[in-house]
Amino acid sequence: MRIVVLAGGIGGARFLRGLKAAAPDADITVIGNTGDDIHLFGLKVCPDLDTVMYTLGGGIHEEQGWGRSGETFAVKEELGAYGIGPDWFGLGDRDFATHIVRTQMIGAGYPLSAVTEALCARWQPGVRLIPMTDDRVETHVVIDAPEDGGRKAVHFQEYWVRLHASVPAHAILPVGAEQSKPAPGVLEAIAEADVILFPPSNPIVSVGTILAVPGIREAIADAGVPVVGLSPIVGDAPVRGMADKVLAAVGVDATAAAVAQHYGSGLLDGWLVDTVDAAAVPDVESAGIRCRAVPLLMTDVDAAAQMAREALRLAEEVSA
Amino acid sequence: MRIVVLAGGIGGARFLRGLKAAAPDADITVIGNTGDDIHLFGLKVCPDLDTVMYTLGGGIHEEQGWGRSGETFAVKEELGAYGIGPDWFGLGDRDFATHIVRTQMIGAGYPLSAVTEALCARWQPGVRLIPMTDDRVETHVVIDAPEDGGRKAVHFQEYWVRLHASVPAHAILPVGAEQSKPAPGVLEAIAEADVILFPPSNPIVSVGTILAVPGIREAIADAGVPVVGLSPIVGDAPVRGMADKVLAAVGVDATAAAVAQHYGSGLLDGWLVDTVDAAAVPDVESAGIRCRAVPLLMTDVDAAAQMAREALRLAEEVSA
Repeated sequence: MRIVVLAGGIGGARFLRGLKAAAPDADITVIGNTGDDIHLFGLKVCPDLDTVMYTLGGGIHEEQGWGRSGETFAVKEELGAYGIGPDWFGLGDRDFATHIVRTQMIGAGYPLSAVTEALCARWQPGVRLIPMTDDRVETHVVIDAPEDGGRKAVHFQEYWVRLHASVPAHAILPVGAEQSKPAPGVLEAIAEADVILFPPSNPIVSVGTILAVPGIREAIADAGVPVVGLSPIVGDAPVRGMADKVLAAVGVDATAAAVAQHYGSGLLDGWLVDTVDAAAVPDVESAGIRCRAVPLLMTDVDAAAQMAREALRLAEEVSA
Repeated sequence: MRIVVLAGGIGGARFLRGLKAAAPDADITVIGNTGDDIHLFGLKVCPDLDTVMYTLGGGIHEEQGWGRSGETFAVKEELGAYGIGPDWFGLGDRDFATHIVRTQMIGAGYPLSAVTEALCARWQPGVRLIPMTDDRVETHVVIDAPEDGGRKAVHFQEYWVRLHASVPAHAILPVGAEQSKPAPGVLEAIAEADVILFPPSNPIVSVGTILAVPGIREAIADAGVPVVGLSPIVGDAPVRGMADKVLAAVGVDATAAAVAQHYGSGLLDGWLVDTVDAAAVPDVESAGIRCRAVPLLMTDVDAAAQMAREALRLAEEVSA
C-alpha cells in the first residue's frame, strides 16, 4: 500500500510514527511543510522536516517534541556572547550540525529535496521524506504594529516562538507559495498513492501551506483515492500548539467540524474527530465528508498507531 | 609607543601576551596571517586570527595553545555521524560559533577586517587586530602524490594538521597573495609605528605569508623604524610546530642564524636568538643585523614579557 502524508512538525511526526507501526509494510511518502523554514545565523533551518526526520529516526527530544535528544547549547551561548541573535530560537549544538550540513549542500547547489534525502541517509526514517517545494516559501503572519499605528508581517517563527502566538494574527501569508513548484517526486507520489492522509497537523500553517503550493491541492483532489484527515482540534481546543490562533486569522472556528469544512469535501473524503467531539459527526457528514469519532490523543506510539489504523479503516470505508 | 607586530598563531599570540605585560601603555597593532584560513563545512575559519583573539581575550585553551577553553565537540561528532568531513580538523562547539558569526557577516558583505573588529568587540584583546588582507589568500604546500607519480598542492592545514608535516614539502605557495591588497589600516599602522616586531612565529607560513602581500614588505623596509625579530628556532629545532619542515621547502636551514638571513638586513635591524644559540650571534651580525642572545622559551607570561622587553631594548639600541 502506498500512503502519502502531508505533514507539519510535531503532530505530523508523531502520527507518522504511529502509522509506521500500524502499517509496517506500507510505502510511505511524507510531503513536508517548509513554510516554517527560517534563516538563522546564515544557516537554513527546516524545523518541520527535521522534526519528522529526528522523530522517525530516533533522534528526537521526546518530551519536547522538537530538537535533538541529549542536546547541548554551547554554540547558542557563544553566539549570545557575541551579541548575535535571535536568542528566542532554541538551536542546540547537535541540531546546528544538521543546519550546517544543509546550508553547505545548498551552497554547493543541491536543491532542498536532495539535501533532505542526504540527511535522511543518516536518519533512516523509514519513509520517503520530500519537502513540499525546493523553492523558498516563508509563512508570514500579519500582526499589529502599535509602535507605528499600523500592521506588519513577521516570520511565522517570530509569531509562534518569540511571541507565543499571544498577539492577534490578522492574516497568514505563505510568501512565495504562488511562484513555487512542487519538489521532484511530490506530484508523482500523490498520483501513485492508494491513500492520502492529513495527520493532526496545523490545518493552516502546516497542511495549508503545503496545499498552497500550486498543483498539490489539485493533484490530491484529482488522485481518485481516499483522502482522510485527523482533527488537530479536540474538545474545541488544539491538542497542542496554538492552532486556534491561526484559525481565527483565517476566519475558521477552532472546532473539529469547522476544520473539516475548511478543507472541504472537494479535498477530504473522511475525517476523524475525537470521541469528545462525537456530536460534530453529523455536521461533518452533512458537508459531504464521512466522519467517525475515535480517541485522538497521541499519548504514546500505540495510541498514535491506533489512530492511524482508524484513518486507514475510514479510507477503506470511503473507497468501498 | 606604537608597536606593530606581524603574527601567526600560537607563537605570535603568546609573544603578544608577553608584550602587553611588558609594555602596558603601548598602542599595539597586530597584522595577522590569514594564509592558514580554510573553508570547512561552508564556514570561514581563521585559525591564526582566532588564536590571537582567544589568547589575548582570555578564551584560549591554555595547554593546547589553540581553540577554546572549556570546549565541547557535539557539532563535530554530529557532522561525523552525517559522514561529513574533514574529521582531522578539531573544531569545537564554542569555536564553531565564532566561525558562524564570521561567515554570516562575510555573507552579508562585510570585509574580514570589519568582521575581525566585530569579533574583537567581544574579546577585547587589548590590541588592534587586523588581518593582513581582506582578499582570499591560501597557503598551499606542494607534496608528493605517489598515487599518480607526480606532485600535488594541498591546503596548508591539510599538510600541517592532517599530515602533521610528515611528508616532504617541495614548495610553499601563498595562493592569491600576488593579487591581494593589504587590509585597511595595515600600511597606515606600519607607517606610523615606532617599532616593528616579528614574534617567534613561523618565518615562512606565518610572517612570510604576511610579507607576501604586495606592499607590506616594502612598507616595513621603508618605515625607517627599528624592525626586530625573535628566532622561532632554538638549538636548531623549532620551539614548537614544525617550522623546520617548511624551512627545508624553501631551502633555509633550520637555525636561528639562517632564519635571520632569510629575512635579511633589508628588513631586519635586530634579531634575538636563544642563549643556547649564542654562537650564532657573530654570523647574524656579519649579515648586518644586530643580534643578542637571550632566553627565548615562552614557558609562561613572565618569560614572554621578558622576551618582549629584550626585543624593545634591542629596538632602542639599533635606533640609537
